[in-house]
Amino acid sequence: MGDKQFYMNLALQLANSVVGQTSPNPTVGCVVVKNGRILGMGAHMKAGEPHAEVNALIQAGDEAEGADLYVTLEPCSHTGRTPPCADLVIEKKISRVYIASLDPNPIVAGNGVAKLRDAGISVDFGICEQQARDLNKCYFHFMKTRKPYVTLKTAATFDGKTAASSGDSKWITSEDARLDVHRYRNRHDAILVGVNTVIHDNPQLTTRLPQGGKNPIRIVLDTHLNIPIRSNLLNDKTATTIVVCGRQADKEKRAAIEQKGVQVKMMTGDTIEIEPLLNWLGEEQILSVFVEGGGAVHSSFVEAGCFQEIVMYMAPKLLNDREGTQAFSGMPKQLMKDSIPLAFKSVEQIGPDIKIVAEPMERRE
Amino acid sequence: MGDKQFYMNLALQLANSVVGQTSPNPTVGCVVVKNGRILGMGAHMKAGEPHAEVNALIQAGDEAEGADLYVTLEPCSHTGRTPPCADLVIEKKISRVYIASLDPNPIVAGNGVAKLRDAGISVDFGICEQQARDLNKCYFHFMKTRKPYVTLKTAATFDGKTAASSGDSKWITSEDARLDVHRYRNRHDAILVGVNTVIHDNPQLTTRLPQGGKNPIRIVLDTHLNIPIRSNLLNDKTATTIVVCGRQADKEKRAAIEQKGVQVKMMTGDTIEIEPLLNWLGEEQILSVFVEGGGAVHSSFVEAGCFQEIVMYMAPKLLNDREGTQAFSGMPKQLMKDSIPLAFKSVEQIGPDIKIVAEPMERRE
Repeated sequence: MGDKQFYMNLALQLANSVVGQTSPNPTVGCVVVKNGRILGMGAHMKAGEPHAEVNALIQAGDEAEGADLYVTLEPCSHTGRTPPCADLVIEKKISRVYIASLDPNPIVAGNGVAKLRDAGISVDFGICEQQARDLNKCYFHFMKTRKPYVTLKTAATFDGKTAASSGDSKWITSEDARLDVHRYRNRHDAILVGVNTVIHDNPQLTTRLPQGGKNPIRIVLDTHLNIPIRSNLLNDKTATTIVVCGRQADKEKRAAIEQKGVQVKMMTGDTIEIEPLLNWLGEEQILSVFVEGGGAVHSSFVEAGCFQEIVMYMAPKLLNDREGTQAFSGMPKQLMKDSIPLAFKSVEQIGPDIKIVAEPMERRE
Repeated sequence: MGDKQFYMNLALQLANSVVGQTSPNPTVGCVVVKNGRILGMGAHMKAGEPHAEVNALIQAGDEAEGADLYVTLEPCSHTGRTPPCADLVIEKKISRVYIASLDPNPIVAGNGVAKLRDAGISVDFGICEQQARDLNKCYFHFMKTRKPYVTLKTAATFDGKTAASSGDSKWITSEDARLDVHRYRNRHDAILVGVNTVIHDNPQLTTRLPQGGKNPIRIVLDTHLNIPIRSNLLNDKTATTIVVCGRQADKEKRAAIEQKGVQVKMMTGDTIEIEPLLNWLGEEQILSVFVEGGGAVHSSFVEAGCFQEIVMYMAPKLLNDREGTQAFSGMPKQLMKDSIPLAFKSVEQIGPDIKIVAEPMERRE
């Protein structure tokens, strides 16, 4: 690993430690170095607050003159909620800037690099680029599609069941696997479930990590507004809840839900179509959605071709129940060839369980 | 790795290369060493032919006097189809014998070691013991239970389906995974399928490896003798076929099958019970059975508690078919707790697919 990779990795680590808390902004880390000595380190902490470059340059102070700056994403060139970072880099007389990845945001997209170069600063990009893109995969996906990045999560037995035929599902996987789920919740802008999950489990859908973490927005797909009025999601106020319904949904029930301070989003169709829903969520600046089921909800995302990743926790147990609930329960298919091609991205052991991450075959961003 | 492990590993490799062709005998490898030079190497090749020790000692010749002998299984002390190996080891004046594992066969079980020690030969055992037991896991299981070792094999989509609802299943997994299946066939005494697999796929159930290999006995579970009289299994004569039926099966159909030179085994009950079937296969000196489904057959082995290993090839595809065929389709269960606890033994990538090996939790032989 060369020194450039060393410093860029450090910047990536800084960014990685705050993934999930900067949305709708990307996660960015920055390191300022002169003569092999680190003068400043920083990450962007929260939308509206200073960018990573600002934090690192403030720490470096006057020593920044003539230094190298490593940043995981192209410095911005426009005035948003904060002034352009490129200007500050120029003002601080940085001599060389190393960038892992260009910013896909069309109002930046190369303009940051151009501005720096126009000011006579030497700029290199592409160091650790793939890691930087992975770090902000939701942001990159959103900038390209204006829709949130969708992760489908399921926990199943070795034979692919998420519940026994009675509906019982407690618990399929180990505590270690369930803790990993909370890490995913912490990194996503929103959690999404079907109303049957709310009726059956009355979940909280909060992030419960030993170190705390952020509660994502909770979204319930509920065509006919069947959500129990006493459910935790409508009453516990631990996180924002949005109930999505079809246009035929009962108006009184809608009013009762709204009276609790919970938003009801009525779609224009009788049923909830996934693509328009994701477009709306994109407009609401929700960049990532963690779909926690059940099987019918997963299948509607799969059939709409709207998912970027599937995380499956597989428990070492055999339910062997022909009527048990299936993790994916879409329409019958004629041929094996009609299945959706995936690629396995990783397989790892978590406690006694296996975690398998797959993505659609065509996804190569 | 010490020198003892080095030579024992070599003996294990010799044995491993012929797994599947020695049944009902165990697979055994042997190395004769003096002053750091290998004088003889051998494996047991086939039941009725010389044992590993004999092959290695013949190669070593007169130089064997004073040498060390490494053998993966305790030398036999009784006259079977060949004279006792322990006698030959003594006669050749071997000075020290290293044994990986004692022989669980009650007519050996320590008697080989005792005979050698009585002759003044120094004997050590337990080197690479676990590998030696794994090598002969079917033999060990059989000696303990008098029933064959049962491996359930399934190939499924990411969502646990072995066929679309139309029945189409060609192909789920990659060629690499299918080649691995042939390796398993080569190592087993018998392949077992349900009659529906024969009706639907008309398979050959032979071993097709680039290097050749051995065809196991083919067993069909067919309670009512519904097997098509023109099916490959009844006509191709590439391997022995046994059709197992219930006592109500049609006598004329039975005669027609037997006329083709195929054995029909009629069980004493109206249905085929797994445990009595395995007891009978044990009496027939079948030490290992590779169960290739379908789902109902797998489930009957699972519900009888009669399996030692499950091999699942998982393809990176999502069928998302709520009516598709399930890899395990047993009776409905009330609670998730009613599932059968397994332990994942290994997970590996085979081409684009994942191979997961699991075993019953309680299995610690």
